[in-house]
Amino acid sequence: MAKLTALDSSELKELKEKLVDACHILDNEGITDGYGHVSVRVPGADAFVTIANVSPGCATVRRLIMQDLDGNYLGGVNAPPNEWPIHACILKTRPDVVSVAHTHSKWSTIFSVLPIKLKPIHQYGKFLPVDGPPIYEGVGLVRDIERGSALANALGKGPAVLMRAHGDAVVGESIEQVIERTTRLAMLGEWNHLALLHGEPKYLTAAELAVYNADQRFPMRGWEYYINRLKGRKY
Amino acid sequence: MAKLTALDSSELKELKEKLVDACHILDNEGITDGYGHVSVRVPGADAFVTIANVSPGCATVRRLIMQDLDGNYLGGVNAPPNEWPIHACILKTRPDVVSVAHTHSKWSTIFSVLPIKLKPIHQYGKFLPVDGPPIYEGVGLVRDIERGSALANALGKGPAVLMRAHGDAVVGESIEQVIERTTRLAMLGEWNHLALLHGEPKYLTAAELAVYNADQRFPMRGWEYYINRLKGRKY
Amino acid sequence: MAKLTALDSSELKELKEKLVDACHILDNEGITDGYGHVSVRVPGADAFVTIANVSPGCATVRRLIMQDLDGNYLGGVNAPPNEWPIHACILKTRPDVVSVAHTHSKWSTIFSVLPIKLKPIHQYGKFLPVDGPPIYEGVGLVRDIERGSALANALGKGPAVLMRAHGDAVVGESIEQVIERTTRLAMLGEWNHLALLHGEPKYLTAAELAVYNADQRFPMRGWEYYINRLKGRKY
Amino acid sequence: MAKLTALDSSELKELKEKLVDACHILDNEGITDGYGHVSVRVPGADAFVTIANVSPGCATVRRLIMQDLDGNYLGGVNAPPNEWPIHACILKTRPDVVSVAHTHSKWSTIFSVLPIKLKPIHQYGKFLPVDGPPIYEGVGLVRDIERGSALANALGKGPAVLMRAHGDAVVGESIEQVIERTTRLAMLGEWNHLALLHGEPKYLTAAELAVYNADQRFPMRGWEYYINRLKGRKY
Repeated sequence: MAKLTALDSSELKELKEKLVDACHILDNEGITDGYGHVSVRVPGADAFVTIANVSPGCATVRRLIMQDLDGNYLGGVNAPPNEWPIHACILKTRPDVVSVAHTHSKWSTIFSVLPIKLKPIHQYGKFLPVDGPPIYEGVGLVRDIERGSALANALGKGPAVLMRAHGDAVVGESIEQVIERTTRLAMLGEWNHLALLHGEPKYLTAAELAVYNADQRFPMRGWEYYINRLKGRKY
Repeated sequence: MAKLTALDSSELKELKEKLVDACHILDNEGITDGYGHVSVRVPGADAFVTIANVSPGCATVRRLIMQDLDGNYLGGVNAPPNEWPIHACILKTRPDVVSVAHTHSKWSTIFSVLPIKLKPIHQYGKFLPVDGPPIYEGVGLVRDIERGSALANALGKGPAVLMRAHGDAVVGESIEQVIERTTRLAMLGEWNHLALLHGEPKYLTAAELAVYNADQRFPMRGWEYYINRLKGRKY
Repeated sequence: MAKLTALDSSELKELKEKLVDACHILDNEGITDGYGHVSVRVPGADAFVTIANVSPGCATVRRLIMQDLDGNYLGGVNAPPNEWPIHACILKTRPDVVSVAHTHSKWSTIFSVLPIKLKPIHQYGKFLPVDGPPIYEGVGLVRDIERGSALANALGKGPAVLMRAHGDAVVGESIEQVIERTTRLAMLGEWNHLALLHGEPKYLTAAELAVYNADQRFPMRGWEYYINRLKGRKY
Repeated sequence: MAKLTALDSSELKELKEKLVDACHILDNEGITDGYGHVSVRVPGADAFVTIANVSPGCATVRRLIMQDLDGNYLGGVNAPPNEWPIHACILKTRPDVVSVAHTHSKWSTIFSVLPIKLKPIHQYGKFLPVDGPPIYEGVGLVRDIERGSALANALGKGPAVLMRAHGDAVVGESIEQVIERTTRLAMLGEWNHLALLHGEPKYLTAAELAVYNADQRFPMRGWEYYINRLKGRKY
């Protein structure tokens, strides 16, 4: 493992600011209440940065913490979030993952305690498995490696896992992707809920999802949009 | 076809500003999220102006594009929206149409994947067919003429078409009318949804819709209202 | 009939400002969209003041109109709202009524097209009949005396009438009371809707409503609250 | 009983400011409309402070009242809230309670008139009895000791009691805890409602709630968050 970049180094300035923006976006879009966190892997290191026991909506670059994938303190405010193993265990078992978000999303909670499934009802769900995300049935805050590993196991190779009576964990190849997925998971949750009240909707099939996934996409539009909403629309 | 007015000519200044306002209204009213677009036909030309690969809520007069009805670039930012054929194909087959809006409306999505119908449950639905708008069942982003033509065909001579697992496309004789119709389609969608949870509502019949359509109406009140909300209420 | 107070006289200044505030409150509380109006009887005269063909949220003291109870123009902006007969006909048949509000309330619309009833499910409904408000089944905008009289007839001696596929009309002994009733009718509509999704709620009986109506109440608290919200909370 | 601290003494300054913030939080989070109140026990005395007949959203430190547990006036604005016995009677029978909130919460109202139960569907409900809060069936405003005592009796040793067709009363060991419980009771109400529309959710059992309650928690994060939202987010 290469020499670790220090949390207060200028190399991490942009990443830290993006992480804080990501937390604020989840708050501003109504996904998080006072709880939840987003993390990002430190480039080239077995370590991650997340918020230090503060609400996502109150996060600042001065309230971050860096930990390694066993939870050891590496810098910043020495007050890890209660559920740091969510991030540590997923990042350890999923080298493809760069960023993780954990929220107490209303919609994920609803689908976590019912047999109904949160499936791709709109093309926004093209990142999801055709049968929707799995559910982690564990009880109790994810405050140790055992629970964190069980959660990572439930997530498997997928993009998201619902956590029973608790919320969800969502992963991605970048902070931007995690935010897009987290907000869309909530939207899809609401839309599945609404549709299911009227009967079985016509979901997108695996073949149909493949058509959408084959379409070229432009990057960053959603991110620019959410940042714009966060900073206050200037029409 | 007469000589084309340039996108940056003063003749188009007011129209471009109105188009940007229209995008902002759809965002401010919660109809669009980061995606969707509104277009307007260039007066006297087989061409249209729309937003250049930017979220409606982030649109500015400097982020517009002009294209002809085959999608050829005619001016502005050379980054057409992914789904420009929605506009091009509808404007080509519907000479009566001046403006088109495409959104990922939550309510249109719900009704696009269920057998329930989005019908005139309030006099605001007087612009709709008595059985509600048709559904375009095509899958995949509308990024080519083939899909665009299929969508225009599904729209037919009507005011709106739902797009399965995607949203809707709404047309009108002016930007103002398209905005009124798009916002009302969303309202009617919500109201149909709510009512259907309690049983079959007493919809307006074709004869009753005719009574409402026969009533004189004052123009622009809704537009003034939406602009007022957009600019920040000054009570 | 005594000499009519002119619309621009200083005697009516306070009443006009309160009328405009009332319109803004209905807008700010999400009851009205671009349409609807509130009226107030001119003290000591067979006349009323309302907004002159403008959205409630855009109303100003310079956009008011005074009419007599036959709809004749008596002052202000000479552009009566489309549905002035709602106000004229109710004020003519109900001498106890000082103020009338007409809105396109979502909840009144839902209950106007279904057999379910908008009943007193909370003590806030103590002003309502135990079986909820009646429904005016007429179709078409209330633009003439015939429709206005039919609406007033449906209202009878009650506090409110739902208008099928259209909204409602609510009356009171003061502008403040009309605003409180209109906002509460919408709240009760939502709450009835929510409860009815789970079965038949335990409504307040006539005897129970009498207990609540016998309790002394403090005036103006709701009005102060709504004005506070309107002007921008200063915590 | 020790000498009573005067309401305008500097010793109570911080407590009064926190009480006013608590009222504003309930308003800002959409729990209260124009009605409801929060109280706090005066340290070391059989007395409490609450808002003096003003909406929670309009409360200021100059609009407070101090009363003893029989309702006698002890200082501040001499206009007790209509339902002061809610506070007096609960504080008298529950020495463990420091703060009481009474609101007309939408969700508590819904569950107060139906056989469905507001149960721990998310770990946020770990403060609740496994079968949800009891319901006070009394009718009429709680304006006398008899009704107040009946309400306190229905509450028993629990954290919250729903009030039929009226709202709820929530208690705690601090103002912060009462606000957290009141806001979470509303969230859990909404989430139970949503889930119950799809069938019987898998609730947390008593044993599972014990697991969550055994987890250490960090204090004040929610309070910091709500204050942040109240004062205006500064991202």
